[in-house]
Amino acid sequence: MTFRPRLLALALLLSPLPLLAADAPAKYRSAQEIIDAAPDGDWHTPAAENLLYMELDGGRVIIELAPQFAPEHAGNIRTLAREGFWDGTSVYRSQDNFVVQFGDADADEAGKAKPLGSAKTHLPAEFQRAAAGLDFTALPDRDGWAAKTGFVGDFAVAGDGEHAWLAHCYGTVGAGRNNADDSSIGAELYVVTGQSPRQLDRNITVVGRVLEGMELLSTIKRGPPPMGFYDDAAQRTPIRAIHLASELPAGERVPLQVLRTDSKSFADAVEARRNRVDGFYKRAAGHIDLCNIPLPVRVLPN
Amino acid sequence: MTFRPRLLALALLLSPLPLLAADAPAKYRSAQEIIDAAPDGDWHTPAAENLLYMELDGGRVIIELAPQFAPEHAGNIRTLAREGFWDGTSVYRSQDNFVVQFGDADADEAGKAKPLGSAKTHLPAEFQRAAAGLDFTALPDRDGWAAKTGFVGDFAVAGDGEHAWLAHCYGTVGAGRNNADDSSIGAELYVVTGQSPRQLDRNITVVGRVLEGMELLSTIKRGPPPMGFYDDAAQRTPIRAIHLASELPAGERVPLQVLRTDSKSFADAVEARRNRVDGFYKRAAGHIDLCNIPLPVRVLPN
Repeated sequence: MTFRPRLLALALLLSPLPLLAADAPAKYRSAQEIIDAAPDGDWHTPAAENLLYMELDGGRVIIELAPQFAPEHAGNIRTLAREGFWDGTSVYRSQDNFVVQFGDADADEAGKAKPLGSAKTHLPAEFQRAAAGLDFTALPDRDGWAAKTGFVGDFAVAGDGEHAWLAHCYGTVGAGRNNADDSSIGAELYVVTGQSPRQLDRNITVVGRVLEGMELLSTIKRGPPPMGFYDDAAQRTPIRAIHLASELPAGERVPLQVLRTDSKSFADAVEARRNRVDGFYKRAAGHIDLCNIPLPVRVLPN
Repeated sequence: MTFRPRLLALALLLSPLPLLAADAPAKYRSAQEIIDAAPDGDWHTPAAENLLYMELDGGRVIIELAPQFAPEHAGNIRTLAREGFWDGTSVYRSQDNFVVQFGDADADEAGKAKPLGSAKTHLPAEFQRAAAGLDFTALPDRDGWAAKTGFVGDFAVAGDGEHAWLAHCYGTVGAGRNNADDSSIGAELYVVTGQSPRQLDRNITVVGRVLEGMELLSTIKRGPPPMGFYDDAAQRTPIRAIHLASELPAGERVPLQVLRTDSKSFADAVEARRNRVDGFYKRAAGHIDLCNIPLPVRVLPN
């Protein structure tokens, strides 16, 4: 837990000679400066078959699926997207400081529910998986909810050594379910828009995360408390379509890249956030929570 | 860290006789059930001189000031409200997953800045205070950002034993400043609308929290990245007025009450959230973070 200005002052005090440039502690760089300077090799392009383009009247939301954690749900969601299941559906719930939820608002009404096409109508719960076999980049700080936290690919992950699971952070996408563990099929999805509801971890199948366009979901007018389901269907936010990027011609795909969470640039950016010593911050936290770390995303020029 | 269904199963297994009602573990009650059943004595009415009514076109936001932590800022904010400083100003910044900020959008422009009336133009920084003398109700779980967390009155508080400070949670209201510690006077205020930015704790003067109407602030259209200040003044959200409740006739005040954070009902509701064993949750977290605890607020019938 370093607090660099003090270390710098100490170094100056102890130095018998004027510091040479080569001896000077590295100048503090902000997370943004580190990200802006990251070499191209520290960025990666997510697989097109894992990217959903959600088209709203206000713009596009891009969601990345996490088949390493929820392979059955990811497969079913791909089927639903290919067959246009969500085209013409809506965001039918917005609960302040919690989630928006979307899909078929009439899913629970016999006779009115939208046909699921060739999607599976039953899936196993995918709340967690074996920790073995994952390329896990651990964070240095303790977390109250889990023994370990860090990243696997583009995803915030928690674990206990034996199992690992996707954590509920801002922008996390999960599969709504009824009371039974295995009552989700990925047709009704929610996105976290509030303070990280980590109590949901390992209680529900997380299927991915939003990479772009969160501000379109987070500002959706809230429905009535406590749950935020709209009483009036006219208040729902229409979904024009949700398509898989891999189903679109290459020229219509967004040239989006994500900073690799196992790169030095990412580690340096996390450290710069843990210990901020720019002109504004007076006291470095020496800590960061898993859900306080934004995932850097960039769109390359076409 | 109890997990009640297992304890219940164990009790049934070990019991040589059928359990009598008096021996049965208490039935799980949700936080909402506990709050709904809280006796009137567990609720309190915040002092009218600490309540700000912020009037937006979409409705009213109610902010409670925290003079125990920021007496100088609270005093200046009362002066500004009494003299109508914010009437006709705006929410001029909305940064996704961070804050909205409001006040005089031209505050930094010489010649255009709105006069501050009899408000003070310089205040000391009030980032923290002595822990002694506070009625602190501690939470049971560990926190990565601070040695202690809990509540003082209606406010989420962190501390190190010697000092205590208001924590940056969803709905926290702070005083915007420039780089100097003591450059805030309470005229430009921000409200946290995203994941708790605890790195700001002890770096800025927190002045209070939103009690009602967060959904009006959290859904304000985001301004352009990275900071969310609008380029176009027309995108700002107008503030009709901000008044102190104590300046209004008693009949025009909202009969608002807050569950006492030192009450048994509040402690029971926190425990019900730490260990959820309703039909939906399959695995109790056995933990809760400071900023995951909502403050129960009710409005009495007139």
